[in-house]
Amino acid sequence: MSTTSFPLLQTINDPADLRQLARADLKALAAELREFVLHSVSQTGGHLSSNLGTVELTVALHHVFNTPEDRLVWDVGHQTYPHKILTGRRDRMHTLRQLGGISGFPQRAESIYDTFGTAHSSTSISAALGMALAAKRKGENRHAVAIIGDGAMTAGMAFEALNNAGVADCNLLVVLNDNDMSISPPVGALNRYLAQLMSGQFYAAAKNVGKTVLKPVPPLLELAKRFEQQAKGMVVPATLFEKFGFNYIGPIDGHDLDSLIPTLENIKSLKGPQFLHVVTKKGQGYKLAEADPIAYHGPGKFDPSVGLTKPATPPKQTFTQVFGQWLCDMAAQDQRLVGITPAMREGSGMVEFEKRFPERYYDVGIAEQHAVTFAAGMACEGVKPVVAIYSTFLQRGYDQLIHDVALQNLPVVFALDRAGLVGADGATHAGAYDIPFVRCIPNMGMACPADERECRQLLTTAFEQNHPVAVRYPRGSGAGVAPLAGLEGLPFGKGEIRRERQGTDANAPRIAILSFGTLLYPALEAAESLDATVVNMRWAKPIDEALLRDVAERHDALVTLEEGAIQGGAGSAVTEALNTMGIVRPVLQLGLPDAFIEHGDPAKLLSLQGLDAVGIRKAIELRFSR
Amino acid sequence: MSTTSFPLLQTINDPADLRQLARADLKALAAELREFVLHSVSQTGGHLSSNLGTVELTVALHHVFNTPEDRLVWDVGHQTYPHKILTGRRDRMHTLRQLGGISGFPQRAESIYDTFGTAHSSTSISAALGMALAAKRKGENRHAVAIIGDGAMTAGMAFEALNNAGVADCNLLVVLNDNDMSISPPVGALNRYLAQLMSGQFYAAAKNVGKTVLKPVPPLLELAKRFEQQAKGMVVPATLFEKFGFNYIGPIDGHDLDSLIPTLENIKSLKGPQFLHVVTKKGQGYKLAEADPIAYHGPGKFDPSVGLTKPATPPKQTFTQVFGQWLCDMAAQDQRLVGITPAMREGSGMVEFEKRFPERYYDVGIAEQHAVTFAAGMACEGVKPVVAIYSTFLQRGYDQLIHDVALQNLPVVFALDRAGLVGADGATHAGAYDIPFVRCIPNMGMACPADERECRQLLTTAFEQNHPVAVRYPRGSGAGVAPLAGLEGLPFGKGEIRRERQGTDANAPRIAILSFGTLLYPALEAAESLDATVVNMRWAKPIDEALLRDVAERHDALVTLEEGAIQGGAGSAVTEALNTMGIVRPVLQLGLPDAFIEHGDPAKLLSLQGLDAVGIRKAIELRFSR
Repeated sequence: MSTTSFPLLQTINDPADLRQLARADLKALAAELREFVLHSVSQTGGHLSSNLGTVELTVALHHVFNTPEDRLVWDVGHQTYPHKILTGRRDRMHTLRQLGGISGFPQRAESIYDTFGTAHSSTSISAALGMALAAKRKGENRHAVAIIGDGAMTAGMAFEALNNAGVADCNLLVVLNDNDMSISPPVGALNRYLAQLMSGQFYAAAKNVGKTVLKPVPPLLELAKRFEQQAKGMVVPATLFEKFGFNYIGPIDGHDLDSLIPTLENIKSLKGPQFLHVVTKKGQGYKLAEADPIAYHGPGKFDPSVGLTKPATPPKQTFTQVFGQWLCDMAAQDQRLVGITPAMREGSGMVEFEKRFPERYYDVGIAEQHAVTFAAGMACEGVKPVVAIYSTFLQRGYDQLIHDVALQNLPVVFALDRAGLVGADGATHAGAYDIPFVRCIPNMGMACPADERECRQLLTTAFEQNHPVAVRYPRGSGAGVAPLAGLEGLPFGKGEIRRERQGTDANAPRIAILSFGTLLYPALEAAESLDATVVNMRWAKPIDEALLRDVAERHDALVTLEEGAIQGGAGSAVTEALNTMGIVRPVLQLGLPDAFIEHGDPAKLLSLQGLDAVGIRKAIELRFSR
Repeated sequence: MSTTSFPLLQTINDPADLRQLARADLKALAAELREFVLHSVSQTGGHLSSNLGTVELTVALHHVFNTPEDRLVWDVGHQTYPHKILTGRRDRMHTLRQLGGISGFPQRAESIYDTFGTAHSSTSISAALGMALAAKRKGENRHAVAIIGDGAMTAGMAFEALNNAGVADCNLLVVLNDNDMSISPPVGALNRYLAQLMSGQFYAAAKNVGKTVLKPVPPLLELAKRFEQQAKGMVVPATLFEKFGFNYIGPIDGHDLDSLIPTLENIKSLKGPQFLHVVTKKGQGYKLAEADPIAYHGPGKFDPSVGLTKPATPPKQTFTQVFGQWLCDMAAQDQRLVGITPAMREGSGMVEFEKRFPERYYDVGIAEQHAVTFAAGMACEGVKPVVAIYSTFLQRGYDQLIHDVALQNLPVVFALDRAGLVGADGATHAGAYDIPFVRCIPNMGMACPADERECRQLLTTAFEQNHPVAVRYPRGSGAGVAPLAGLEGLPFGKGEIRRERQGTDANAPRIAILSFGTLLYPALEAAESLDATVVNMRWAKPIDEALLRDVAERHDALVTLEEGAIQGGAGSAVTEALNTMGIVRPVLQLGLPDAFIEHGDPAKLLSLQGLDAVGIRKAIELRFSR
């Protein structure tokens, strides 16, 4: 960091320094902070639009509240780069989201200013309420502040928390950071309603909150105009949040420190649950990001003066793209198909599907529980829903998967993207648990394609079943096996032998590797030097028992392999099947350990877990060497 | 059924018969239906208060809507006895909740009138919206109606669905059956708000919905008065549901067919999402139940003329009671303890705790997601939360368990009641999956007490840890081993040998049964004739590897035993540990099969699954007989 570029920022080593600054200097500090964020993210990649949107809000919160004594809980947390920079991590920003570096999300272990780890959305009000009531119990007079986006507000748990907090007697402030965009554009009644609030119709009424007096805030009117065209439908004079028992204040301009600071100072003196509605703009201050906040939501490295550029060589096809293409092709062939996403149109590869089949595309908002049961309702009527959902987010719809889909044995396909390690997003987003938590559910099937071609084939197989099936595939690209153009499936519940051992060394133990998913390719590589048989199991549920019996009978030892938790995973499905069949063999289970694994380069992380060709070979040799 | 007592009801074999009745006869039918429900439940046990409350609403819905072509989705579904009686199941009501008999909840397999299986709360709007949009896609002109209670409205997924439905263009009707009581009394801002709506302040305004004209409904005023004292706080002129894009109609008296039928007929002709607020009374028409709807929520058999009576011999202490007593005792000893329940004060045994420690008791409403993250927030501040939650309902807070509690390694105790089979409530409530879905999460511990005494001890052990621990125990009572008065724990992660084989038959295979939880006692019984060693493993996570190694080395075969899903369960934890240690032994895994198990007597259900002493002995002999 050049100290000449950031003369004020370089003096801020923790928020106490910030609170020493003259009010007049805060604008300049914010300008430096914005510049620093842009510079930093352009070097490391990471979230950009959201962080450019929270610069002033972060400055204001740390200026007004006595952090870390007062607790800030940032919902989702990908907008906390300004917070990290102001709380002693400025000089580590170049390590962001890299192995051993700082996290892209708040982490309790990383800083006392990160009071609650976040990453999945909509947890902040629950956590902050817990903190506020704990403080009250302990007689500690501190504030707890949840900062939550409008997208995150649509998730059920945010409402559960509002419902509970609105009757709680404690110093809780909810700051709604309303930028009218989650990752995908917002959907649903709440977002329509928020747009109305911002349209100016209610501005005068909203200001009149009695206990606090706000100055008129002229810049807001400009912001308001941008949203005005979205305001239609209902005309309502009181805010929804007041109905929940909150004192509603706003909307105010979240980029205007002269609005933010006095308002927050006033709020600090109020008792009971407070709700501040702040309007910000994703990408604020960087024209390219303002114009296309989705593209700049989570860019890789780029030159800020140029912006994002198309890579010279087209990147390898991702599993997400394979899914997106399959979805379109299957939709064209089968009128019954509908696609459902909980606010992950881009991430799940459904942009093209929405374009081509808008009336068969359902973005339900950040609402995984509803997404799953909504799919169940549709399936009851003979429609065939495909729910595209990250492995880690299916955890949010787990009860619905059991109670509404599986128990009624409804044919819903779950396309589980981001299964296994996810790289830069780290432990919070790891799709490590889906095999155990899905395969214990009766009626479920679960496919683990080994490559792009199989991914397309197994999606078709899943779609053809008359019961629920999940297909799990990792983030990014795989071995690069091009999908076939057609829509043929593979046999349900059947694997294949990909390599037979040669057996040239008659004294060597006869080893078979049973692989689930994309680790098939490193397994094949490892098998060469081991002369092991390699089985592509393809299905974590059901286990192909005939194949397993055949292989087990012809080998001395079995190795199971999966990019997922060993505990209860596919390897355990193999041992259960062996136990059922009464076959006794030594089994080595390779997969993810019983630990949360941090962020970093995915290939490097897999290697560290021994899940590359070298690691697989070594582990097998260690266990089964003569 | 005496036809003299129920002259009208006996003519109704499906709702088409009901629609043939003269309007004037419907009141008499409702009276008979209420009498029949009371008579029937007093014979079988089951839910009473809620079903007495839905008699008129059920008659009205089937009268106005063209069921089953129009879809009724009953939220929770324990209030569907009138619906079952009117849809061809009158003569099977005496088999209710019994093995082979009809379910206490709607079940798609049971009747075409049961359009969606329910039991867990708050799924109905999602499902009905799915049905409505599917109908629209298929060009079918039918209505979808969700009937949801005010308690169920507090769960996040209901809001996710409202948010999505409010902007949907389809024929969806949400009927809010507002009886101001979930199982525990209602809590939270929404219930306060609903009470205000009912207080009469907004009645005139609410009636003025433009498109529909309602007659004044005098009986409502009486109802309103009962709730008036609860109305305080906010004064709000428009309804929350209108903010979500619904056309709000009500509140109307849900026991007055002259209000219900014309209102529903009017609504039927309206387009877009409609919201009808109906006020009913739990226990309506049966004075004893009206006076104490909680006691009559789910009674056993009783004499309607006498009401519930205390049993002559006090029933055996339940695990729920053991937990309740422990919670009070530990709270008295440790000021840091707080108790959290998602609307299950009675079911979780927290009545006494609330009385003695009201300021440390948090009922967050039907809001499992929030309950878990709220606990996490408290744990961050050094408070020690105990979350009392049924095994089946933890499925609703699964992501929060992983992402908010375990990932941050926060010391939260989860008291998982109703683990294993639950009897009359059936498959929807089975606590069958908690071992697989909990033990795959890093940092978690999981205890499986074998009896009442251990339950208390292991709760203490759980509370003493500095990481999250779940303690699972079944519905009802166990072996009857009285808990000790003190608060001593047992060693974390350690099991014990309860029976050593005698070895008098030198040729017999040396068998050890590794038991997790209350099946220890049938295992001990089975072990006598088998001369097997019996190990009380106590912890599904971590596995006591030292004990396992010792036992495995001294035996020829191992049998694992648990009241939970075999897939990924504790038995698989044992085989994983054996695989890790490189010990190869035949293992027989006994537990619940990969199937949903219906309602019925718990002991009988366990026996059918081979999980009693005889079944365990037979399974072991079959597998390991010489």
